Amino acid sequence: MSRLNEVYPNGQLVVREVGLRDGIQMADTFPNTEQKKRWINLEYAAGVRHFEAGSFLPVSRFPQFADVRDIVAHIQSLPGATAIALVINERGINEALKAGVDELTLVLSATEEHNQANARRSREASIEAIHHAVESRNQSRSRTLLNCIISMSFGCSIAGDVDTDEVIRLAGECIAAGVDTVGVADTVGYAGPTEVRALCLRMTEMMGQRPYTVHLHNTRGTGLANAAAAVEAGARIFDASLAGLGGCPFAPGATGNVVIEDLLFMFEKMGYDTGVDIAKLVQARVVIEESMPDEPLYGGIARAGLPKNFG
Amino acid sequence: MSRLNEVYPNGQLVVREVGLRDGIQMADTFPNTEQKKRWINLEYAAGVRHFEAGSFLPVSRFPQFADVRDIVAHIQSLPGATAIALVINERGINEALKAGVDELTLVLSATEEHNQANARRSREASIEAIHHAVESRNQSRSRTLLNCIISMSFGCSIAGDVDTDEVIRLAGECIAAGVDTVGVADTVGYAGPTEVRALCLRMTEMMGQRPYTVHLHNTRGTGLANAAAAVEAGARIFDASLAGLGGCPFAPGATGNVVIEDLLFMFEKMGYDTGVDIAKLVQARVVIEESMPDEPLYGGIARAGLPKNFG
Repeated sequence: MSRLNEVYPNGQLVVREVGLRDGIQMADTFPNTEQKKRWINLEYAAGVRHFEAGSFLPVSRFPQFADVRDIVAHIQSLPGATAIALVINERGINEALKAGVDELTLVLSATEEHNQANARRSREASIEAIHHAVESRNQSRSRTLLNCIISMSFGCSIAGDVDTDEVIRLAGECIAAGVDTVGVADTVGYAGPTEVRALCLRMTEMMGQRPYTVHLHNTRGTGLANAAAAVEAGARIFDASLAGLGGCPFAPGATGNVVIEDLLFMFEKMGYDTGVDIAKLVQARVVIEESMPDEPLYGGIARAGLPKNFG
Repeated sequence: MSRLNEVYPNGQLVVREVGLRDGIQMADTFPNTEQKKRWINLEYAAGVRHFEAGSFLPVSRFPQFADVRDIVAHIQSLPGATAIALVINERGINEALKAGVDELTLVLSATEEHNQANARRSREASIEAIHHAVESRNQSRSRTLLNCIISMSFGCSIAGDVDTDEVIRLAGECIAAGVDTVGVADTVGYAGPTEVRALCLRMTEMMGQRPYTVHLHNTRGTGLANAAAAVEAGARIFDASLAGLGGCPFAPGATGNVVIEDLLFMFEKMGYDTGVDIAKLVQARVVIEESMPDEPLYGGIARAGLPKNFG
């Protein structure tokens, strides 16, 4: 069995908690190391197994990720848990590989304009860097997975429309470069279910036995509708965050990620076995309430509880 | 052409503003008559044509609907606009018919338990009352449409699970009694897209050329996902409210209706022409902000704006 299918068994629905990275990336106030560990422990006890631990970014600019190695180690101390980290350059990749992170999130923008604005290089240069990441990983003989997320896959806040063909082409280039899997991201919450279904059907066809990631934001309320379309089109790895934590650097005023509690509720209602105890999961919100008291928390399940006839 | 198809042309997607009824039914503070008219005018200018004007309920218990006749008349003064009102008993039906309301919303619960708790009579007695409503309407020679909404169609806060067969049977009994159309309601926000699709496919089959209503709540975050499933299954009349206004008497802590701005955004993204200028529609929120300052307002479009590549 491939390492990818060890971490993401083919066909099994996986919802990943990305709040510890995407959820706090824009925040001035954030949980300290002990609070992060408590957050992870509470979600782990509820059944969550995949955690984005943080990012290997310059500590001077992103103090919230200064403890990323500690958080990765904590996640890896929990049986069956997977630690994921975002990397954006060669230095970060090498540090993350040295830290033995289970999976690295690499990013490529669907549009030239956004890639230039975000990574200050062309998409071609980013793809070249992905080749180098694969080489570094292979030379390190590590079991670290590489997952390249195509941001702005459903529309770009700079370039506007994004062609599905282009996203598929870029995803194919990443796979050709040797990453283990790829993902599509609605970075700025532009997508509706029709285009999510269309792109995911093509992704499912292209990826075959390889599970791929769908990273949605709930900026305009369509997060769960898009997730339903994606899962029906064969997507099996979803990113979400507790209480929908997370802003978006490219969409001021936007809410963040899909609310993990509500997403899991919907998937369970749709007949998928997520392995997560949602009532237990909701309890982890206390860590955000304590550590980020000014942050708006989202989510219907936390407010209304589970239905009488649920489960 | 039937009166039903005059108001709801077959195949055309219609989103109805129910905030003036469902949105303020549980509220202690609510817009006055002038504020309601301003709200309607702003939404009308944005392209909304179907408004639930209020309810013919005892004024002593529901002072927010004391001006329902005035609001109905105001809506009817706007070319092409339709005024809808909720009625729950014979007295209300007769008053609403006398007032010349365009459409009456009747309610029947999917479960015996909820019908007893809500209407203090059996479902059989409620269906008998629907027969009387049809007779009254026919005798009055009015053009008033009768639309019976089956509440708790996707699960009941008292009885738990609800059988799809039972909802279809009750909808069929309403049609047999002579109402113009019926609707299904997720009154307490229990539904997920799978069961919404399943029930709506059967409704679409049963109703044929008759458009039917889908009334969803966003209690647990699945409102838009459920609406996407419903429209794909052939549903064409949707209820929603500005800023998601509205609590639910049967689900404490629940948010209310689907956010009309976000719903219209999603439908437009799915390729449906709603005829509504969403940016203009958002401006109507000012009336709720002014008249219900303590009310939590929901909605992604109001917060983040429309995407750069929209429309």
